Amino acid sequence: MKTARLKAGQLLDACRARSDRVAGAMTFDTILVVGCGLIGSSIARAVKLFGQAKQLYVSDHSENVCSVVQSLGIADGVAEGSAHLYAAQADLVILCVPPARMGDVAARLIPSMKAGAILSDVGSVKGDVVKQITPHLRDDIHFIAGHPIAGTEFSGPEAGFADLFKDRWCVLTPSDEAVNKTALNALTQFWEGLGSQVAIMTPQRHDIVLATTSHVPHLIAYTLVGTAVDMETVTQNEVVKFSAGGFRDFTRIAASDPVMWRDVFLANRVATLEVVDRFIEDLTALKRAIRWDDGEQLLEHFAKTRDIRRRIIDAGQDSAEANFGRDE
Amino acid sequence: MKTARLKAGQLLDACRARSDRVAGAMTFDTILVVGCGLIGSSIARAVKLFGQAKQLYVSDHSENVCSVVQSLGIADGVAEGSAHLYAAQADLVILCVPPARMGDVAARLIPSMKAGAILSDVGSVKGDVVKQITPHLRDDIHFIAGHPIAGTEFSGPEAGFADLFKDRWCVLTPSDEAVNKTALNALTQFWEGLGSQVAIMTPQRHDIVLATTSHVPHLIAYTLVGTAVDMETVTQNEVVKFSAGGFRDFTRIAASDPVMWRDVFLANRVATLEVVDRFIEDLTALKRAIRWDDGEQLLEHFAKTRDIRRRIIDAGQDSAEANFGRDE
Repeated sequence: MKTARLKAGQLLDACRARSDRVAGAMTFDTILVVGCGLIGSSIARAVKLFGQAKQLYVSDHSENVCSVVQSLGIADGVAEGSAHLYAAQADLVILCVPPARMGDVAARLIPSMKAGAILSDVGSVKGDVVKQITPHLRDDIHFIAGHPIAGTEFSGPEAGFADLFKDRWCVLTPSDEAVNKTALNALTQFWEGLGSQVAIMTPQRHDIVLATTSHVPHLIAYTLVGTAVDMETVTQNEVVKFSAGGFRDFTRIAASDPVMWRDVFLANRVATLEVVDRFIEDLTALKRAIRWDDGEQLLEHFAKTRDIRRRIIDAGQDSAEANFGRDE
Repeated sequence: MKTARLKAGQLLDACRARSDRVAGAMTFDTILVVGCGLIGSSIARAVKLFGQAKQLYVSDHSENVCSVVQSLGIADGVAEGSAHLYAAQADLVILCVPPARMGDVAARLIPSMKAGAILSDVGSVKGDVVKQITPHLRDDIHFIAGHPIAGTEFSGPEAGFADLFKDRWCVLTPSDEAVNKTALNALTQFWEGLGSQVAIMTPQRHDIVLATTSHVPHLIAYTLVGTAVDMETVTQNEVVKFSAGGFRDFTRIAASDPVMWRDVFLANRVATLEVVDRFIEDLTALKRAIRWDDGEQLLEHFAKTRDIRRRIIDAGQDSAEANFGRDE
């Protein structure tokens, strides 16, 4: 095989060339981003920066968000509220509103969409979103739900940036085998053009995997920060002062958008509760080991968690620098 | 009051001048650092860089650690095993061994220490360490336990760096009112010279505060990473791929030294179990809210945790950059 004979440097160049080509390819003429918070505005910026569409339109129900988007200059057109005219032109309509609002927004826009267009979304929960949107679908548009696994603790259009999706995974969850392959390929290329890797799975699998890697970690962080704030024997001032011992990492996660996360937990109830129950069982076992002075059991448990960190760093999903490479 | 009339810029200059003076002052002629892992080697580097002693000696029971320290050139002398000769010269002996070994190490070195010298430590638990060391104390040396709230997920002498303590808190826990004020001032100045702020409290208060801000966060991170790794319905490969959704932050904390943390949990058993129980209660309440679709309660809980994040950033205890300012 010819590629196998390339040296490391050549291989890297070859990869770069491929990546440039993908980034340079334009998958859609016209895109409408509905809802312009952290994710929506990052998509808008990335689409412009990586040349992924000729026209990029944005709509949002908030007047304030619309005027921020306008002043940021990240869209070719901005509509407050319904965006029927933009929806009628778009080859891709991508819903970036909170999970709980997906059904309503889809119901309003689908009648305006042009035949053959693709409808997608970025919701953190897939089973519930698919259930909300499905009753409103038309036979002549292609619905493929999606979820870019990327984000920060900040919200709003100012918080977005074009590189948010770079080297992150985006999960697409086509609902059944009947999905149009050309549409799925186009959407895959679109996300690859924004720098992501694409994984395809069922909505149900997505929801249990994400409950484990994202939803329950957030629930636990919110809980722990609340517990610390409520401890009568420890002042809030002390919690702030001594947070560098580990607590501050939890406060970052627990600073994420509360409304969005409430919706996520309620929409992904079954999987979230399943993982939380497993977690409480495991924590209870470690509690018991501490109470009974069982150092062996603690050590055995702690040692096995180190390997997974190494694999996450090797997979390019986190920085290997100490304390995430914080300045201070 | 004269200071109050200074303008912001002048005040800053005044502060800087004070900080330079403190950093420049040499508190001790000779220091012995016992145990040269992440913390011990960071103290050694900081002492040299900030000119905090004329002579800085290191001892460690591991031959390998001693030869690494020698090749790093961060000490004026290195002793493998007992360090009676260095202990006899030192004005400050600072124990940086795992919490469980503090008593044994102190018992061996205290007889060699010179009259008037200070004995301190960096253990993450204070009640238990004080209990271990107290029976071996002499009337003519000053024992003041301490704990710098700083660290990374890495271990060993190579992982240390001089700025580890900069802008971090160091807690000193003098055991009773009879503590020698001159010794306490000297140790305070020493830590300030390394860039830290010093807080003074009882060992018991330290242990409950740190159980909240550090020990339980670590226990929870270890537990969650273990739960995820054990989930039969989710592959380890998926956990790695999709870790950017929140999970990766937990794996960093859960990558910390397992032996040290086992010792910490066992030594601070009472406070750890108290905080864990509170946490499980709170998590159970949120679980119930999710099960009963009580969005109000979830939102109320999540909203109150945001404020504490803001205060931690304002207090200089964390970076305000998105995702801790990670590169990717």
